[in-house]
Amino acid sequence: MTTIDACNPSKFDRELLLSCQKGGVSAVTVSLDMWGDSRKTLSEISGWYRMVRENADVATIIVDSSDFAAAEAAGKVGIVLGIQNTSPLDGDLGFVELFDKLGLKVMLLTYNNQNLVGSGCYESVDSGLSRFGRKVIAEMNRVGMIVDLAHCGKQTTLDAIEESSRPVAITHANPEWVYKSKRSKTREEFEALRQNGGVLGLTMFPTMMGGQQTTARDFVDMVARTVDVMGIDHVGFGSDLITNQDDNFLNHARMGTWTHEIDHGTGVAGGPVRPPWPSWFSRVEHFPNLAKALREGGFDDIEVEKVMGGNWRRFFEEGFARV
Amino acid sequence: MTTIDACNPSKFDRELLLSCQKGGVSAVTVSLDMWGDSRKTLSEISGWYRMVRENADVATIIVDSSDFAAAEAAGKVGIVLGIQNTSPLDGDLGFVELFDKLGLKVMLLTYNNQNLVGSGCYESVDSGLSRFGRKVIAEMNRVGMIVDLAHCGKQTTLDAIEESSRPVAITHANPEWVYKSKRSKTREEFEALRQNGGVLGLTMFPTMMGGQQTTARDFVDMVARTVDVMGIDHVGFGSDLITNQDDNFLNHARMGTWTHEIDHGTGVAGGPVRPPWPSWFSRVEHFPNLAKALREGGFDDIEVEKVMGGNWRRFFEEGFARV
Repeated sequence: MTTIDACNPSKFDRELLLSCQKGGVSAVTVSLDMWGDSRKTLSEISGWYRMVRENADVATIIVDSSDFAAAEAAGKVGIVLGIQNTSPLDGDLGFVELFDKLGLKVMLLTYNNQNLVGSGCYESVDSGLSRFGRKVIAEMNRVGMIVDLAHCGKQTTLDAIEESSRPVAITHANPEWVYKSKRSKTREEFEALRQNGGVLGLTMFPTMMGGQQTTARDFVDMVARTVDVMGIDHVGFGSDLITNQDDNFLNHARMGTWTHEIDHGTGVAGGPVRPPWPSWFSRVEHFPNLAKALREGGFDDIEVEKVMGGNWRRFFEEGFARV
Repeated sequence: MTTIDACNPSKFDRELLLSCQKGGVSAVTVSLDMWGDSRKTLSEISGWYRMVRENADVATIIVDSSDFAAAEAAGKVGIVLGIQNTSPLDGDLGFVELFDKLGLKVMLLTYNNQNLVGSGCYESVDSGLSRFGRKVIAEMNRVGMIVDLAHCGKQTTLDAIEESSRPVAITHANPEWVYKSKRSKTREEFEALRQNGGVLGLTMFPTMMGGQQTTARDFVDMVARTVDVMGIDHVGFGSDLITNQDDNFLNHARMGTWTHEIDHGTGVAGGPVRPPWPSWFSRVEHFPNLAKALREGGFDDIEVEKVMGGNWRRFFEEGFARV
């Protein structure tokens, strides 16, 4: 079975790559520093090249449509380089093509806050895509870099879906009519994404799906309700797992250098920085639990295959091609 | 006939690309800002992508060994992206691979001054390759980026030739026993380069070849004397033409941000910043004059072909391959 995790900001090492293999993970989109400028992002990409070179028996970097089949045939975990912000562009449109050439294949337009491209989900006013933002989407469409909208504000999300000439992704977000959160997405956004032909990754990050007490059955119920809106061909998973990351990582993710005050993201004041995960899903080895729960929830084999990774694979294979 | 200019720091535009075609230039190594850090170099590379995309009827960027034949078949000028310093690395060994992937295929180790890699030709003491410098060469060898030594000091040049597991280049320098200059190279360096299997580009920059009064016949005499040392398979040209560049360009090249006092490079105090070029060679359209002078100087057709570009083409085609 194809299993793809469309968003996994864990700190990877050889052990975690081996865990991906154990969990049957065919490919995983990893997350470079969401506040990194071009210089920082270059360093991180070269770090990934080195890690994959030194673990070439386990992993391979996926940059082209054909690489998924090659990784599968070799029994290796496919690494898709992604970033949850457009900060690496440094405001330079030409950098889209450069980073695409370096293998950065998924880029989230905005991370929580307003930036040069548009607005994030925590801003009180979202004025939608900027002039630069429209150019960035056209360039991403041209070179075959995936537009991700997970942390964008609603207007920016809707604008981007309308602006993009190719299907886009929401790699990790849940429906707000099931789990209320500024990071959740509205029915209107989901319907627009479906019409665009894009794919949504439902997420297991605890504070975005009801917390540790949520059962696999509850979660699969959300999957079913989402499929009712999106259709079986447009839903997958983006775990948002943060294996090997400490509290500093989440504080950095939420605060970057834009504030000196604690920001809680989807968490709450007084709660833990890193929320506890449910026993049925807290590590990449638990992906088979999800497949089992989907079957128990009434999904047939073809549907399970699509939601576990088939949809992401089709989407990425089409989306990575240069037009 | 294959004509290759292994170093041309001109300011390129469509007109100059068309002039290259008129001059029969098969391929030209252009020069990005020799003081640029990673960020600046990214901007410049993306600028070149754009220029070549907008002039795709005239030019094509050469990154692979097979691209020379493709450019020739299409009648396009091949653009080889080069830089006369290792400043884009920002001291990060992993950046060699990144910039290679972006198409930067020729990198000079040091530009006049000492840097993280080694020493330049104008330093009073050249302690040779640094620890980082040795790592950089090994990485350039691995990925197929050409090591250029034109502006290096003598010890750094000799160390680099010894360190490199693959043939290296001196893209633009003349023999110091013909034209005395700190930028000229000694017989010892040339003999080491020959043994390494590398190629030397003789240069027409006026202050490095006796000034405007030097005739094509004088110049060809220097070519012959150089071939006597290097052999016919190891000599080519690197014009160092600075078409469309103003005085600020040369002041920037010589002074960067490392000094606030005028530096004259190969020029002299009181002389012009940009020296006048001889009538037989002042523009890329004049490459055929060189070929004619070589024939008149006694070189046969096979020899002329090698020196005009055949040697560089063989060297680049072999050197660009990843090992």
